Amino acid sequence: MTPFTADVKVRFGDIDHAGIVYYPRFFHYLHIAFEEFFDREFGRTYPEVLDEEHVGFPVVHTEADYRAPARYGDVLRIELTCTRIGARSVTLRYRARRSVDGVECVEAKVTTACVDLRTFASQDVPPRYREMFSRFLEP
Amino acid sequence: MTPFTADVKVRFGDIDHAGIVYYPRFFHYLHIAFEEFFDREFGRTYPEVLDEEHVGFPVVHTEADYRAPARYGDVLRIELTCTRIGARSVTLRYRARRSVDGVECVEAKVTTACVDLRTFASQDVPPRYREMFSRFLEP
Amino acid sequence: MTPFTADVKVRFGDIDHAGIVYYPRFFHYLHIAFEEFFDREFGRTYPEVLDEEHVGFPVVHTEADYRAPARYGDVLRIELTCTRIGARSVTLRYRARRSVDGVECVEAKVTTACVDLRTFASQDVPPRYREMFSRFLEP
Amino acid sequence: MTPFTADVKVRFGDIDHAGIVYYPRFFHYLHIAFEEFFDREFGRTYPEVLDEEHVGFPVVHTEADYRAPARYGDVLRIELTCTRIGARSVTLRYRARRSVDGVECVEAKVTTACVDLRTFASQDVPPRYREMFSRFLEP
Repeated sequence: MTPFTADVKVRFGDIDHAGIVYYPRFFHYLHIAFEEFFDREFGRTYPEVLDEEHVGFPVVHTEADYRAPARYGDVLRIELTCTRIGARSVTLRYRARRSVDGVECVEAKVTTACVDLRTFASQDVPPRYREMFSRFLEP
Repeated sequence: MTPFTADVKVRFGDIDHAGIVYYPRFFHYLHIAFEEFFDREFGRTYPEVLDEEHVGFPVVHTEADYRAPARYGDVLRIELTCTRIGARSVTLRYRARRSVDGVECVEAKVTTACVDLRTFASQDVPPRYREMFSRFLEP
Repeated sequence: MTPFTADVKVRFGDIDHAGIVYYPRFFHYLHIAFEEFFDREFGRTYPEVLDEEHVGFPVVHTEADYRAPARYGDVLRIELTCTRIGARSVTLRYRARRSVDGVECVEAKVTTACVDLRTFASQDVPPRYREMFSRFLEP
Repeated sequence: MTPFTADVKVRFGDIDHAGIVYYPRFFHYLHIAFEEFFDREFGRTYPEVLDEEHVGFPVVHTEADYRAPARYGDVLRIELTCTRIGARSVTLRYRARRSVDGVECVEAKVTTACVDLRTFASQDVPPRYREMFSRFLEP
């Protein structure tokens, strides 16, 4: 299984007063990778998933280790794999590495529920989404 | 006429790689002042205005002068006045001053249309909004 | 032990395409509470701590449960307590509740290292910081 | 003269409570285009310019017209040209168009001073920067 990868450039305004990427910003980077995952692996973009299929994946749990800082000028390669596909939720693992030296800055596990966006009611993960996630399931 | 004022604290994550407030962030500060303006001067909060009265004020034009940097630790006092009340739009002036020394960091003029949020169609500024803005109209 | 509390208003621009607070934004809210904690409980503001004492508390681990959405118009009351004071790190617990109905939106545990900001080298938590955190230590 | 162009995807978290791109966010998009401009046209990245050449271009004036909303799912093609190269400042014009239909969402003029980042003192625009900007100077 090859992880899905997306590259994200650290931007001038992503930096905090300590001169490193503001830590909440990493979750934004992970969400960009999640959006790219749909765009490139599902066949429909995430906006289409939300607006036309009315399926959403709100985050219900996160765990993250911040191992090394990222700085302005870094490009982060974000790997996405799937650690668990439940009936009504999915857990994804993200690893964000600095492209310049391969150092892992952040490893995070993010669990998302599957909901009907019109009601926010929990629902089963539809089969073709399940199929997409299963292609990236860790052994 | 006394300007409306709102205080906004510069936050740790608002800083850019040059060590000063990231310039787009100032427009966010101005929007906070705009939201506070409704909360305190209109009698209904801006979320209520949007969701219950279906009135919105999308920005159509901005002009801003950045005169001095703001840094982490600064509190900005933002003054809001009104420079023009048109039939279907309103122009507001914002001045953001550092509380510590009174230095004006940013002066901006922001023109907002008035729309029906259900259709985004332009509409006349309703009378009670007009009344609120007129209390802060510059002579 | 009474938790430290800070109130944070959800802003117009904090919302995502699903109409709820964008989940990374909650970590920004928690950081605002952390900054307020220093401003009100330490006797020196966090900017002073960083720039004059050269002490910083970069995040090394987070765990968060998202239990209910927050929406535009909500004010979140954020409670901060301390669950562990180690030699060189501190773990804080945050609970963000909607003021309108008391519903807990997010509970998070955030572990921060203590570093010398000039070198980013890990260091012992200085005594007067330890004292501040210990006043909010959970039993 | 062919404008410099950079494509920016509207992200899930860029949306405001009215369902369109939060207006301050456009200035962030413009800054991304500005960073890309250096990366691709100057031969050194903007982080290198800032950290190694100690040259910075802080914004001193902006004017923007918001002509049409951008929504989640839109990709914006941002054109950058130069309208004026002064001794110590440069004015850039940005046009952000939706790729899907070519509609111009925002046109902005942004004037940046040239400073020595170590002191924030104004300085002449160095020749090789002047050369880069002049390649995109409007007739």
